[in-house]
Amino acid sequence: MNVIDIATAASMLQSIDDILILTHKRPDGDTTGCAGALCLGLRQMGKEAYVLENTEVTARYASLITPYYPPQDFTPWHIVAVDTAEEKLFTDNAAQYQGKVDLVIDHHPSNTKYGKNNLINANAGSCAEIVFEVLQALGVRLTADIATCLYISTATDTGCFKYSNTTAHSHAVAAACLAAGIPGAEINRTLFEMKSRARLQVERLVCDTMEFAQEGAIAIVTLLRKDLDRIGATKDDLDSISSIARQIEGVDIGITLTEDTNGTVKISVRTTKSNAAAICAPLGGGGHLRAAGAAMRCSIEKAKATVLQVALDEVSHAG
Amino acid sequence: MNVIDIATAASMLQSIDDILILTHKRPDGDTTGCAGALCLGLRQMGKEAYVLENTEVTARYASLITPYYPPQDFTPWHIVAVDTAEEKLFTDNAAQYQGKVDLVIDHHPSNTKYGKNNLINANAGSCAEIVFEVLQALGVRLTADIATCLYISTATDTGCFKYSNTTAHSHAVAAACLAAGIPGAEINRTLFEMKSRARLQVERLVCDTMEFAQEGAIAIVTLLRKDLDRIGATKDDLDSISSIARQIEGVDIGITLTEDTNGTVKISVRTTKSNAAAICAPLGGGGHLRAAGAAMRCSIEKAKATVLQVALDEVSHAG
Repeated sequence: MNVIDIATAASMLQSIDDILILTHKRPDGDTTGCAGALCLGLRQMGKEAYVLENTEVTARYASLITPYYPPQDFTPWHIVAVDTAEEKLFTDNAAQYQGKVDLVIDHHPSNTKYGKNNLINANAGSCAEIVFEVLQALGVRLTADIATCLYISTATDTGCFKYSNTTAHSHAVAAACLAAGIPGAEINRTLFEMKSRARLQVERLVCDTMEFAQEGAIAIVTLLRKDLDRIGATKDDLDSISSIARQIEGVDIGITLTEDTNGTVKISVRTTKSNAAAICAPLGGGGHLRAAGAAMRCSIEKAKATVLQVALDEVSHAG
Repeated sequence: MNVIDIATAASMLQSIDDILILTHKRPDGDTTGCAGALCLGLRQMGKEAYVLENTEVTARYASLITPYYPPQDFTPWHIVAVDTAEEKLFTDNAAQYQGKVDLVIDHHPSNTKYGKNNLINANAGSCAEIVFEVLQALGVRLTADIATCLYISTATDTGCFKYSNTTAHSHAVAAACLAAGIPGAEINRTLFEMKSRARLQVERLVCDTMEFAQEGAIAIVTLLRKDLDRIGATKDDLDSISSIARQIEGVDIGITLTEDTNGTVKISVRTTKSNAAAICAPLGGGGHLRAAGAAMRCSIEKAKATVLQVALDEVSHAG
């Protein structure tokens, strides 16, 4: 439970070698970018450092960590976990390192401080913003390879600098990365603009099925399993699809109903003013003020009628 | 044709008073944000400063300049134009100021340097990045109001820090603005996420009409006038609609055909690898390497067949 600061983390890293870096399950841009950047930084200092294999890494982020997978004969002496809030989020092959992490670097407020040393900053938009500071403290030169890792981390975790977790420091890190000569626009195109053809079909389905209630304050999208199967939509293709309904002008409550593969109806609620968690609570779900969810085991028509009634109640109470 | 630097522009502004600021025709976030920020900065210095009325300003950017429109009895002694590449782009009510602009602040490489003094930096992502430097040199305190103007300018001109014109300095300016306490996420939601219901219908039309050729390397979207009229789509609703076709994975050439109100077929070509200008040239159009356009006076079916043939030729030549 030892909580340390940037300088202490840096001097600790300075003193160790033979380092293995862990990323979290269902790896995103931040955990992979942090691992890649830290690994490259430690190597620049002449240390031996690797990133533990993460078999769940998608094509999008593979290049950030796969070049640094350890050889079979590597015996790690020190373990560092990045962007990983708790040991439950370890990949299966990292189970042996539970209780043995020397340094945790993270920005999740829920971090359980499971490391021997824990460098946590919940105000950082991305974990990479902390890694950036550590590398600076270590005197590591910001090469284009390291900058690419840190930029992808920060851009993906902040929605390309759009979300409320974006701080002045997020922009400062991005500025340093661009100054290191990375092709920001090209990276952003791949990360934020490119869509699969299946994704396009899912968006078409969203447009086609969107209905409005309460003079446009409520929008409901209905995604049937048979349509998603016909399209061949993957989990990636459905990523953040529930945000579309709320994006429409005048919409306060955006509701997306999806027939899940497990036979339930997944309900996602996104709001601009109303309490999303309060809408999902009577349905047995929960979440945050502006983003919440629930799952119902009934027909999608029944689920739709139920959630609509709860949403109407919420709007009339608020009004 | 006097080209000056930041420090000279600042000392010039320091020495003048009774200032009128001009924005360009079809005002965007950058020209309005620059005008608002500069006006507020000059007033903070105790000067009398106003922004000339721009009747074309849309609801989105109105709050950046309308509070600073001059009273009827105001007689300007000095004129400053922001983000305006040439006098042809002046609003009609600014015609009397042609040849009389004391200071031009701009970032367009095509700027004609029509002012008595011209502060031009073609490497700036937004004109606001230059205005920021001028205000710093003047010792103006970055209030939340000024920061809001500069942030909107920079975020809109760089596609929320995604486009290739985004530099380390763009991020540095954004960092300073967020540090001034503005609600970045809220501003970004309005600027980049909110869609009108008509816009949603236009996107649905794009999905519905998109066809592929050359094994998915070419995507063609066909927007008929009768459909756009039925939807009631405004120019705002059609803004950057031609970028969608190119966003699809595997698409090199995205072509969007729109039946214009004037009876022509508007052709927009966006590419990732091929030469967009070369595709539009044989159709009597032109443009840049990755974004070009043309207009044909024929049926939309004929236009589609013609542009598809040219695009296929371009791909096979490149291949």
